[in-house]
Amino acid sequence: MLRIITQWTEAKAELRRICDRTHDDQVMHKEATVREVLQAVKRQGDRALLDYTLEFDQQHLTPEDLRVGGAELDAAYQQVTQEYIEAIRLAKQQIEAFHRQRVPKSWVHFGEDEIVLGKRYTPVDRAGLYVPGGKAAYPSTVLMNAVPAKVAQVPKIVMVTPPGKEKTISPAVLVAAQEAGITEIYRVGGAQAVAALAYGTETIPKVDVITGPGNIYVTLAKKLVYGTVGIDSLAGPSEVLIIADHTAEPSHVAADLLAQAEHDAMAAAILITTDAMIARSVVDEVERQLVDHPRRILTEKAIAHYGLVITVDSLEAAAELSNEFAPEHLELEVEDPWSVLQNIRHAGAIFLGDSTPEAVGDYLAGPNHTLPTSGSARYASPLGVETFLKHSSLIQYSPTALQKVAQAVDTLASAEGLHSHAYSVRVRMRGKLSSDG
Amino acid sequence: MLRIITQWTEAKAELRRICDRTHDDQVMHKEATVREVLQAVKRQGDRALLDYTLEFDQQHLTPEDLRVGGAELDAAYQQVTQEYIEAIRLAKQQIEAFHRQRVPKSWVHFGEDEIVLGKRYTPVDRAGLYVPGGKAAYPSTVLMNAVPAKVAQVPKIVMVTPPGKEKTISPAVLVAAQEAGITEIYRVGGAQAVAALAYGTETIPKVDVITGPGNIYVTLAKKLVYGTVGIDSLAGPSEVLIIADHTAEPSHVAADLLAQAEHDAMAAAILITTDAMIARSVVDEVERQLVDHPRRILTEKAIAHYGLVITVDSLEAAAELSNEFAPEHLELEVEDPWSVLQNIRHAGAIFLGDSTPEAVGDYLAGPNHTLPTSGSARYASPLGVETFLKHSSLIQYSPTALQKVAQAVDTLASAEGLHSHAYSVRVRMRGKLSSDG
Repeated sequence: MLRIITQWTEAKAELRRICDRTHDDQVMHKEATVREVLQAVKRQGDRALLDYTLEFDQQHLTPEDLRVGGAELDAAYQQVTQEYIEAIRLAKQQIEAFHRQRVPKSWVHFGEDEIVLGKRYTPVDRAGLYVPGGKAAYPSTVLMNAVPAKVAQVPKIVMVTPPGKEKTISPAVLVAAQEAGITEIYRVGGAQAVAALAYGTETIPKVDVITGPGNIYVTLAKKLVYGTVGIDSLAGPSEVLIIADHTAEPSHVAADLLAQAEHDAMAAAILITTDAMIARSVVDEVERQLVDHPRRILTEKAIAHYGLVITVDSLEAAAELSNEFAPEHLELEVEDPWSVLQNIRHAGAIFLGDSTPEAVGDYLAGPNHTLPTSGSARYASPLGVETFLKHSSLIQYSPTALQKVAQAVDTLASAEGLHSHAYSVRVRMRGKLSSDG
Repeated sequence: MLRIITQWTEAKAELRRICDRTHDDQVMHKEATVREVLQAVKRQGDRALLDYTLEFDQQHLTPEDLRVGGAELDAAYQQVTQEYIEAIRLAKQQIEAFHRQRVPKSWVHFGEDEIVLGKRYTPVDRAGLYVPGGKAAYPSTVLMNAVPAKVAQVPKIVMVTPPGKEKTISPAVLVAAQEAGITEIYRVGGAQAVAALAYGTETIPKVDVITGPGNIYVTLAKKLVYGTVGIDSLAGPSEVLIIADHTAEPSHVAADLLAQAEHDAMAAAILITTDAMIARSVVDEVERQLVDHPRRILTEKAIAHYGLVITVDSLEAAAELSNEFAPEHLELEVEDPWSVLQNIRHAGAIFLGDSTPEAVGDYLAGPNHTLPTSGSARYASPLGVETFLKHSSLIQYSPTALQKVAQAVDTLASAEGLHSHAYSVRVRMRGKLSSDG
């Protein structure tokens, strides 16, 4: 049952509790396990991958099983419907169109005295995409990770995903990967897969950046290998915050709250509304929609622990609470969403108006669905082409340009006590002066 | 004494050893200390800051000492030269001009069926800048961190830096901070300062992103608080790699190698050259310039352990080795640097031609001097305005647009077994159909 909170201080405290829900004490214990896994894979390579896959996924693999073969890739297309293939193609096309917009481009600027300054963007050499699996299949995650890597023109992209029963990978996932142009796929998941991508094994290549969501073990592994490789972010459980006014349709709001809650017992679903009647109707609607929900137990658990309805006096107050929470997904189910947007400072993705349920963004509107969670939208952005690009600064000075700043560099280097910094400019001036005379 | 390596395999092995020089076993031990510091600051706030400052910096502070006062800020200007103030102003102006170029801007795209998609950029609310201190003073680091934060229009920027003897902060640092518009400065350093910025204390505000370089304790603290706050990068010891051909001037190359080595006994200074004579001359020049170097012992140590000269057959081979190392600073001391640039894939900042010593970029050319180290240029970029910005995706669908994709969303949601995702679209169609009829 969704609780309704009408009191400001209580609302703030509850939002804080929900935002911090993953900072539990168990993490330290799990971190020790993850460190062991990382070390074992670093030392023993494939051998460790097979051992952990047996231990954690109960699948007995041989080294030859690790890479998904061509026959299995081909066969996947026979195991999905034509309708599914078309939906994946539509999604891929729209995700690609969005991600192709405003990709950062290299530039140089020519200044006075033949100074050239610039930025040069290049893709990483190799990217590793983590796709959760096992019992569930997330083809949408494949597209959301693979398409930006492809748009960034990463030369080598590999994917890892844990095997399910009888070593299988979901055909839906294998089709999505191929539609996105990924054919190097490894049948391994968990912290061991992250370790393989970070350090390399006999079979799996070391990559430069690892992206994609996973469970707490995957997230901890990504945090620990960060620095050895780049990562996209530390993904926590998913969350939605909906701001609704009197124009909102309770059955729509309820469906969107449940679409979040059904992901995970740790998922958070929050409604902030200016209308007490809407608040009550949504609570009722959630109960109604839960009745024959195929994931009722898990979804009810999320709603009970991390579901919340807050009533506020104004849309400004709603925006203020939302900014404190910095939600992964923010829906503005209000009469004038663009006006509310002006007061929003932190959110991963913002869905404007009643005809934009989060699900449309989850699958195919185009923007990425890998978004900052647990309040990290305060400083982080959605996964994107930038995740697979980096840039170098370019600097070229002429003798004249160098001469003009020589004294200033000398002064600053001396202030920092760095003798050779100053000398490296002075020695060039000496050459300049002698060639001048 | 700089060693010369002529053998390809040995060169690769040596570059690998140098690149991995910070991955030592001591890190685990230090991490335990850092965890303790973080926990203590989280629980005890200011009290812990004062205790650790006494323990690590041997300075006995009161809570009132933590914030640098107005009188001290004013007095700093009396303790530096006019020449210094002018040099800082020149540097600030040029850094600002560079960072103002191509700042990411919010955009929306209007598609068919009244679909609106976009990206909305906003600054973080609060940034915390770490500036190393104690015995040394790094006013350039102040500018390189503060200017991009200011350009990003971060509303609240605070700085932390450890106190030196008699609780003082370098006047050069205090002047640089004020010139960059920073006046909220706290007298605390090390892991305890990072903890204060990540969690907040009675005196120091919690921030959203922490930037700036520091020693191994600061870096470990940043890694551990990453996820609670954003960070710029995990900075390791500094490094330069110089590619030189027969046109290079040995005394210039030697000065630039030493300008790196003088930073730190862990700093790396590498020359790759196509000319064996240049190689020998640079080795001699380094010896000569070391004779009366004010930091001779430390600099010699860096050169001995992490200095290297490699001779290669071609500039292509030089670029290949450089790409494997992915240097923080890359100098192209060659006849045609723009042609060599075409083969460079990974580097933090690239200095083209003989008149562009690294020092000019360290202080005032404009691009940032906070750059990816230890091979992280393979996936990371220089500090910049983007470090202080994040964006939200914007999505608005119309009823017509939603109807057109309804079937595809349904198909994909069903493939992932997510009932309410599908329902959240279907329930809106129902409304649509009934209002149509």
